[in-house]
Amino acid sequence: MEMTKKRGNIPRKVRGFRDDDPGLTELKQKIITKASEVYKSYGFEHWDTPVLEYADCLGKYLPDEDTVDKGVYSFKSPELEPVLGTDGKDLKDEQGKTYMDNHYLSLRYDLTAPLARMYAEKLWMDFMRKQVVEGKAPMFKRFQYGPVFRYEVKIEPGRYRQFGQIDFDTVGAEDVMTDAESCMILSDALEACGVEPGNYVIKANNRKMLSGYLRALGVADQAQEMDIIRVIDKADKISMTELELELGPGRKEKSGANIKGLGLDQQWITGIMDLLGSFSEGSDRNTVLSDLDRQIGDNELAREGLAELHRMNEVFSKLGFDESRICFDPTLVRGLGYYTGPVFEAISLQTYKDAKGKKRRIGSICGGGRYDGLVENLLGMKVPATGASIGIDRLADVLISTGQDMAKAMGPVLIVMFDDNLMMEYQLIAQELRQSGIDTEIFYGARKQLKKQLSYADKKNCPVAVLIGEDELAKSVVTVRNLALGKELSATIADKQEWKQRVQKEVQRADLVSHIRSIMPDKA
Amino acid sequence: MEMTKKRGNIPRKVRGFRDDDPGLTELKQKIITKASEVYKSYGFEHWDTPVLEYADCLGKYLPDEDTVDKGVYSFKSPELEPVLGTDGKDLKDEQGKTYMDNHYLSLRYDLTAPLARMYAEKLWMDFMRKQVVEGKAPMFKRFQYGPVFRYEVKIEPGRYRQFGQIDFDTVGAEDVMTDAESCMILSDALEACGVEPGNYVIKANNRKMLSGYLRALGVADQAQEMDIIRVIDKADKISMTELELELGPGRKEKSGANIKGLGLDQQWITGIMDLLGSFSEGSDRNTVLSDLDRQIGDNELAREGLAELHRMNEVFSKLGFDESRICFDPTLVRGLGYYTGPVFEAISLQTYKDAKGKKRRIGSICGGGRYDGLVENLLGMKVPATGASIGIDRLADVLISTGQDMAKAMGPVLIVMFDDNLMMEYQLIAQELRQSGIDTEIFYGARKQLKKQLSYADKKNCPVAVLIGEDELAKSVVTVRNLALGKELSATIADKQEWKQRVQKEVQRADLVSHIRSIMPDKA
Repeated sequence: MEMTKKRGNIPRKVRGFRDDDPGLTELKQKIITKASEVYKSYGFEHWDTPVLEYADCLGKYLPDEDTVDKGVYSFKSPELEPVLGTDGKDLKDEQGKTYMDNHYLSLRYDLTAPLARMYAEKLWMDFMRKQVVEGKAPMFKRFQYGPVFRYEVKIEPGRYRQFGQIDFDTVGAEDVMTDAESCMILSDALEACGVEPGNYVIKANNRKMLSGYLRALGVADQAQEMDIIRVIDKADKISMTELELELGPGRKEKSGANIKGLGLDQQWITGIMDLLGSFSEGSDRNTVLSDLDRQIGDNELAREGLAELHRMNEVFSKLGFDESRICFDPTLVRGLGYYTGPVFEAISLQTYKDAKGKKRRIGSICGGGRYDGLVENLLGMKVPATGASIGIDRLADVLISTGQDMAKAMGPVLIVMFDDNLMMEYQLIAQELRQSGIDTEIFYGARKQLKKQLSYADKKNCPVAVLIGEDELAKSVVTVRNLALGKELSATIADKQEWKQRVQKEVQRADLVSHIRSIMPDKA
Repeated sequence: MEMTKKRGNIPRKVRGFRDDDPGLTELKQKIITKASEVYKSYGFEHWDTPVLEYADCLGKYLPDEDTVDKGVYSFKSPELEPVLGTDGKDLKDEQGKTYMDNHYLSLRYDLTAPLARMYAEKLWMDFMRKQVVEGKAPMFKRFQYGPVFRYEVKIEPGRYRQFGQIDFDTVGAEDVMTDAESCMILSDALEACGVEPGNYVIKANNRKMLSGYLRALGVADQAQEMDIIRVIDKADKISMTELELELGPGRKEKSGANIKGLGLDQQWITGIMDLLGSFSEGSDRNTVLSDLDRQIGDNELAREGLAELHRMNEVFSKLGFDESRICFDPTLVRGLGYYTGPVFEAISLQTYKDAKGKKRRIGSICGGGRYDGLVENLLGMKVPATGASIGIDRLADVLISTGQDMAKAMGPVLIVMFDDNLMMEYQLIAQELRQSGIDTEIFYGARKQLKKQLSYADKKNCPVAVLIGEDELAKSVVTVRNLALGKELSATIADKQEWKQRVQKEVQRADLVSHIRSIMPDKA
């Protein structure tokens, strides 16, 4: 392509990414701190893996995405490296020369696939030496947080191509207690982050029931089962009629777009719709369990799933997690390809008005499940695993849009720059305030008019301004303006003189720290 | 390339990357928390930018790297997007059709270039509307932390291709006080992170002095000046003789590798070596200032640099930052291309023994400087800026290798799994302990022999194990083993019975929490 005009170096973010302001970073840090404390209290240790991984180590499990290019940011490594054989050793040609290649690297799309890589890598040597066997792999509990990346072609409002996740996982434990714990941890963590009970609910289910039920119907192929699960996963977005059409001949959207159907036999469709239609939302857990008992038939796998749900119910009830926190929802399947048993998801029950005043549901804020096959792809040995993930950006947006967080950070005390000759005095005052634990900055901007400096302080949410000129210095006093109070009073006091009298005070230089401390607003 | 054998999906990290264990993640989190507090106390706000940026927005400033492929991980975006002209609008051909392209994306190589992008992006519209003019750009102070990426072909020990940085920067302030503040902030932050005074020193200098001096010698070309700076930047790694050869004809390394020289005139080389040779390490700041006064000549730019150094000295002395914390080093230049004035660097003064017992210096742990031209590349308008960066992984490795941090996280209390029938009892105890603020986990691993469970607890640094079987439950007691004490005593007490008596105790079920609380080791 020929350029006829000059191409610009225009400052811009990549589409689908965002810059976080101080209100948002503070809230996200709070979510990380609170969730970490909860995860740690259940015995999870903080580990961290890199942002970049070999594409072949991550696998392909994104919902609705099948190719390397879709969903995952991948590129060829600039480094030429040996190609490895299935034994982990360099692959050589007949002359003994090692095959070299530029391997594909990926930006991680979640924190679960890298965990499987780390666990498998740690176990690899032991496994090759046959020092560990299936069913006896060591238990490993870790939590981790950090950015993950999805190349979504269409960017929905409130979705980003980079977003934070905070995950916890237990590898090497098959006890369904660990799945029950996952639900309780999500509940504890959401409440620690400020989501009030009643504003969310955790839905739990077990994929084994659906798998067993489908097998009893005659669905034998795993890929076909996954196709059906992906359609059922849309249950909270489309109507039951639309869902039925997607299992069969397909349907046309309002936009005119054609959604291809799975083209299943009518008998299967009827069976699936029977199962999905037999539950009413809001039922208590015991009612759902009895309904399931009648509905799922006698397939062994389905029965195993139901028994696990019973066991989860037992511990929820014992520890006081009632239906206002955790309920059962047999239509919940989750779209990710790697789940094999219990699945769970937290739903925000709140609505909010978007920028256009339209009322919106928030929907899913976190979720997880059991994925007993993920490590197997890398190690060739089944290792049970389960865990969950909170979307940090998602949860932060929920707290902000529902008014549960101000998303406004408090700024420092501002020392107004009146006179460059007093710089050393300003420096000493700033040091004194900082040493007393009060964040303080000196104004160094180019536009030094008082009005500009105060507008800077306002934008930054500074609670207090300190004003000193030659006069004040000579009298050993300082003028302190209570900006937080000033903002509050400006709504009710029209008289400038009265307003100034209320918010501004001359204090002795020696009393500066104690005076400022007395008027500082409490930190949230 | 044809594959004759099967290629494996071997679980492995990308070369040059690492997984962080709990001791390291905790230490890194501590560094982030402490440094953030210090940065915030000086009025910096926490902003966050994405990991991915358009390559053209980041520019090329890495030391020793000149091409897109070297140093930076870059790849073509999967998205077809409009090409922008220098006015920021879509570039169109003669038929009015927009040029489209897959733009290059880069993993950020530092946090400074993305800051310049964010600042320029915020100001872009105002600038295009001529609502902001040179010399009057708004002041903006932000801190940020996160991973950055460098594709280093040769990986030195202790260096990684992904590492954490925590930066603070002031944009829109030209006062050299901001540079002085940068040095004081680095000093405060290092000490807050646990680097003792005396174990580090911050070196400061001003590139204007060298630039002015070189111009007086006759070096007029900016690229040539940068070449000279990159050679001088090696002053702490190579000898003065080697440095002189690199300015001239070049030299041969011990390994046999040829280092190309700059081929400068002998007169220039003599001038440069004169300047570098005229200072002795460890001089106090006033001595360095007088030496400089005699050496740097009367070039205006050089004099300006010296005056700035004088001003920095004034505030350092006023606020009590003496030479044990901040000194002046006229040989310090720093290799990054974008610095234009004051530069500074913190050096660890400690040594440590590496895995082979060889004594090693640590060297630079953080640094920064003024870069008045970085925003200009994106906005076409000069905007002053200065700041610094602490290498989080680097500082963590320093604290660990010099024994200033244990890098060992404390694990949770472990409830030993004796009997699956007691699961609900274990769950209740775990909940009770957690609600009392004591991290607690129940053992869910596959290998349930007591020895295996205790070895798991040992690996995880668990302080306490709780043991309950049917007998204990019937008597309403629990057995508590003090694992931390046990580890300590095992060195001195050989008798197993005596050891057990000391570390294990049967307590009433009702006293469990208070007993465990009484034996928990203090958290660091």
